Amino acid sequence: MNARASRGLAPLFLGAYAENNDLLEKLLLEHMREHIFWRRNFHPEDKPPISTTAQHDTAFLATEARMREALHELAARLKQSVPFFHPRYVGHMASDLMLPGLVAQLVTTLYNPNNVCIESASVTIDMELEAGRAFAKMLGFATDENAYPRAWGHLTSGGTSANIEALWNLRHARFVGLAMAKAAQELGDDTLILSDGRSLIQLNDWELFNLPIDEGLRLWRDWVWRAPPELAARREAALKQHLPEHLGLAGFFQRYWTVKPPMILVPATAHYSWKKAARLLGLGTQQLVKVAVDRHMRMDMGSLERILRQACAMQTPVLAVVAVLGTTEFGTIDPVHQVLELQRKFAEQGLYFPVHVDAAWGGYMASLIRAEDGGTLPYETVRKKFRYFPSADVYEALKALAGADSVTLDPHKLGYLPFGVGGVIYRNHLISRIQAEKADYVFREDSHDGFDNLGQFILEGSKPGAAAAAVWVNQKVMPLHAHAMGELVAQSIRHAEYFYDRVQWLRERLEGVAAVSIPVEPDSNLVTLAINPYGNRSLEHANRFMERLLATLSFDGHKPLQNIEFIATSTRLYRDNLTAAEAQRLCLELGLAADGFVEEADATQGQANSLLIMRHTLMCPWLIDNDSGFNYLDAYFACLEEKVRELAGLSGVVQDRHSA
Amino acid sequence: MNARASRGLAPLFLGAYAENNDLLEKLLLEHMREHIFWRRNFHPEDKPPISTTAQHDTAFLATEARMREALHELAARLKQSVPFFHPRYVGHMASDLMLPGLVAQLVTTLYNPNNVCIESASVTIDMELEAGRAFAKMLGFATDENAYPRAWGHLTSGGTSANIEALWNLRHARFVGLAMAKAAQELGDDTLILSDGRSLIQLNDWELFNLPIDEGLRLWRDWVWRAPPELAARREAALKQHLPEHLGLAGFFQRYWTVKPPMILVPATAHYSWKKAARLLGLGTQQLVKVAVDRHMRMDMGSLERILRQACAMQTPVLAVVAVLGTTEFGTIDPVHQVLELQRKFAEQGLYFPVHVDAAWGGYMASLIRAEDGGTLPYETVRKKFRYFPSADVYEALKALAGADSVTLDPHKLGYLPFGVGGVIYRNHLISRIQAEKADYVFREDSHDGFDNLGQFILEGSKPGAAAAAVWVNQKVMPLHAHAMGELVAQSIRHAEYFYDRVQWLRERLEGVAAVSIPVEPDSNLVTLAINPYGNRSLEHANRFMERLLATLSFDGHKPLQNIEFIATSTRLYRDNLTAAEAQRLCLELGLAADGFVEEADATQGQANSLLIMRHTLMCPWLIDNDSGFNYLDAYFACLEEKVRELAGLSGVVQDRHSA
Repeated sequence: MNARASRGLAPLFLGAYAENNDLLEKLLLEHMREHIFWRRNFHPEDKPPISTTAQHDTAFLATEARMREALHELAARLKQSVPFFHPRYVGHMASDLMLPGLVAQLVTTLYNPNNVCIESASVTIDMELEAGRAFAKMLGFATDENAYPRAWGHLTSGGTSANIEALWNLRHARFVGLAMAKAAQELGDDTLILSDGRSLIQLNDWELFNLPIDEGLRLWRDWVWRAPPELAARREAALKQHLPEHLGLAGFFQRYWTVKPPMILVPATAHYSWKKAARLLGLGTQQLVKVAVDRHMRMDMGSLERILRQACAMQTPVLAVVAVLGTTEFGTIDPVHQVLELQRKFAEQGLYFPVHVDAAWGGYMASLIRAEDGGTLPYETVRKKFRYFPSADVYEALKALAGADSVTLDPHKLGYLPFGVGGVIYRNHLISRIQAEKADYVFREDSHDGFDNLGQFILEGSKPGAAAAAVWVNQKVMPLHAHAMGELVAQSIRHAEYFYDRVQWLRERLEGVAAVSIPVEPDSNLVTLAINPYGNRSLEHANRFMERLLATLSFDGHKPLQNIEFIATSTRLYRDNLTAAEAQRLCLELGLAADGFVEEADATQGQANSLLIMRHTLMCPWLIDNDSGFNYLDAYFACLEEKVRELAGLSGVVQDRHSA
Repeated sequence: MNARASRGLAPLFLGAYAENNDLLEKLLLEHMREHIFWRRNFHPEDKPPISTTAQHDTAFLATEARMREALHELAARLKQSVPFFHPRYVGHMASDLMLPGLVAQLVTTLYNPNNVCIESASVTIDMELEAGRAFAKMLGFATDENAYPRAWGHLTSGGTSANIEALWNLRHARFVGLAMAKAAQELGDDTLILSDGRSLIQLNDWELFNLPIDEGLRLWRDWVWRAPPELAARREAALKQHLPEHLGLAGFFQRYWTVKPPMILVPATAHYSWKKAARLLGLGTQQLVKVAVDRHMRMDMGSLERILRQACAMQTPVLAVVAVLGTTEFGTIDPVHQVLELQRKFAEQGLYFPVHVDAAWGGYMASLIRAEDGGTLPYETVRKKFRYFPSADVYEALKALAGADSVTLDPHKLGYLPFGVGGVIYRNHLISRIQAEKADYVFREDSHDGFDNLGQFILEGSKPGAAAAAVWVNQKVMPLHAHAMGELVAQSIRHAEYFYDRVQWLRERLEGVAAVSIPVEPDSNLVTLAINPYGNRSLEHANRFMERLLATLSFDGHKPLQNIEFIATSTRLYRDNLTAAEAQRLCLELGLAADGFVEEADATQGQANSLLIMRHTLMCPWLIDNDSGFNYLDAYFACLEEKVRELAGLSGVVQDRHSA
């Protein structure tokens, strides 16, 4: 990007030097005062309950003093915070915050709306639903009133809640077809007709479970939700008796023993929240099947297909396949398009599964392929902005998001907003409608799709409207297409490309000192790095070397912050996630003994089951192109070179090998 | 409270007139600037990445303009927010915010710590754990290093998440005994010895499920957590094979078919998040058994005992009994002490159940009985502050919290903090330790009990450290005992008592116009009100009258805020939650035909299955004692009198009865 364009992004952040301090101060003061005088305009005739005399009272002053003292203690302690905001921070998925959203959040907090229901959030529920529709459009979902399925999305407190809710909704939706068939049989009702003309009650249990959810939800809409109230109530009461939501999973599978408990397929790289979700929902980690990843740390399609083939043969239901768009550890992107191809292929064989995309990290990357008019930018247009990005597979994966059933997406990550705001978007809004805690035939479909009282339809209850205002304002300033929000995301990816190229420089500089490798080819804006001192062949020693290196590049709040030059972070590359060939290639590149990289490791023999590697998130907007003329990534690599030289010299590879 | 004491509370809020605007502005500016210049002190030698020249660039100015415009649009829309802050708002559980916590939250948001792990929150995880210990102490839990069980608590995004997490943890803990016994049998290990000397593997499945959780967790601690690493790993691997967390609920109950799926007992007044929890966790709403409430809208002990007796006879396991401390609808308080008595009684008969207290609303009331030194204040001392509060039962219930297994408690309710912060406190910290997503034998027990990396142990993942700072600062300024935070809670209860007394005035004023009743005797600081126009006997008409009355006392964001005199809210009293005698008494008091108050109602006959009533939350600190000399509660009742007179005149009871 040229300096001119980057200047257009400059007011969006407070800045590493807090350059935009006047702007933040002015905006915050202006809007804080607007809140203050809003208070005085509610009932201007009311006299102030707190008099100025009271404010001069010693009791008042004593409490005020306690308040100031407590805040000073907080301020003192906060000085030891992690400096996410700075280009010297290239660690976790955190960076400086977008100023419009930040100010919106701070100011709206003064009003304190609660987005649980319209009575507690007369303004911000609209904003949350608007923001949800904007996310849906970015992903390529239909949001038109008359479309079926029509998307909706809402905010959560974070990505974990979003993932849990999505899996919960998918679990529910999967059993609706079967439960409706049983209920209809009981009621002697044969009005449930599939789009291919068959009657629902003719299907067997396996077929019923494998009814595509859009088909099941459409039937439910017509059979229950749009039925005349009395009939609807009767049908709903009958339906409930056959749903796991009512029977419990134990009761349900005891009654419908012909259906086996379903598997959830996730890539081996999936975030640990998926394990939490499987446990919490009572599905069990045994049912959470990890699909192998390929050497790009993407879900391996051969492995997925093998599992699906077996599931088909054994009639083992698949609750959902989860693809990850931007893994937490490597930023890699699963081939969503190929997962959807397998979906089509296996649906033909009678095995249907919905697809959830965990795009907590990468969700905003969809803005890169979105034109201002909502269309999809061609591959070549997107490619022009970058050196390497996107690979054909990454581009196709982004395009394929439109075919997913649900997507998790975290505004508090690449949306540059304060922590506490995730999101989940559903391609079919009925998936949440069916979850309503109360029979709500009274809601009109045209008022927010009847989602006014959010708490009824989602996992969470009371929730800050301030987060919704923040997301909404950010979207106003930076709409979710390639020429606005996409510019910010693109910058981050270009930084990663620069970083990637710079590794070659480091490799050359450290010739004879240490071997340097990028163990996982980056798909987006995370880059990993493996370093091994020259002459060392022990995996165990390489890991200890890396631990020492990382200790100099980390901050735990206990040493003066000023002692830290740069902050990076780490992850582990597990042997069991690599093929033998890939493990060998990596060891060769690093000069390590490949036979020491094993699943069952004996540390006394210098073996290890995983390789500790560096992990860099390149979110900060000022890493390269900035007016100071200082290139932080160059400086980072220079720092790395120095530290590696120092540690490689100090660590005494020979002794260490000896002792190992 | 005298005016002097109330002056000590005055600086704690911005105020209805934003009287403390200077204070808020100064504190926010000071601490915002402290953040700004903290940024410049990280690497003072670095030049600013954004130059002043860039700030004068037209591209910069264009983005800045977009930002201001979006924020102005937000500000304009926020003007239609619900005025929670004002004494004219006596509706939902929301009020003005405590200034120290508010400032702490706003300021900490600039640092943006993420309390998922210590690497992302070097400061605020400590604060969260400190705050959790303070809550535990307020509840009467042991927090001493050497105590067993020792409590711990953490923050959540809200009460719903807290309830779900607690039930999840209880579910897990309940099956640990059984799973350990099975694992030990497999391993040929007979080292699991109960405190009464029996060997665990001698127990039958019913006995294993009914092992008190403190006993099960103690065994787990010694058998797995404190065992030498290799042995621990072997035992843990074996244990896992018998836990629902791994097998799934379907798989578990298929294998252990001698154990029936357990019930969860909640009062009929329980919040709808319990239904969500039962569904989400795969337990099923069928297993969520609603215990009848008595005429005080408290869980009826006779009904609970009957259910437990039957469970005992049928060997139906009880996963947990949930008591509510401050129901959402009525603020009523279940007799926790009597639930614990039944716990002891049935444990002797072989039926054990843990007790969760949903104190989302009332949790902070425990500060009323807590002395500064942590002791419990005697009944008489507490009584002195009030006219009626606390009843002996309410006092005993508060005291009994110390015997609960887990407690939900919402800082964003009676903690006067912005929405987005709940909390859950466990009497036994091992209940979360056992949930760890990774085997963590490496953690030392003395560093935060090893809870540094919070995300591993709780439902949620990434979460705002700013909320932790807010809770922590509020606790610094207002510790959780009777002479600090308790004063604020006490004031709220005294307002409710004043309100209660004032109803008599209204009753007299409306003689011959409308009948007025307090349908549910208040236990705390929520007061309900039922009103029926004189001469009307139809339930259905009474409800329509109330709807019209409430329409004049509500705000949905669509009319000018200034048109609203007062804001109240409503709830429904369901016939099926009342005894026949109580329903009759209420109808008599209101002049309604008791035979019209029925479970299966025919609206055309003027019947109804529920009575729409008013609900008032009396949180606002300036309702009565304030320097303006204006008593908002008197004004509210005057307003109510006027509106009822008007509507009763307008509504034409005679015609309406005719049409009904």
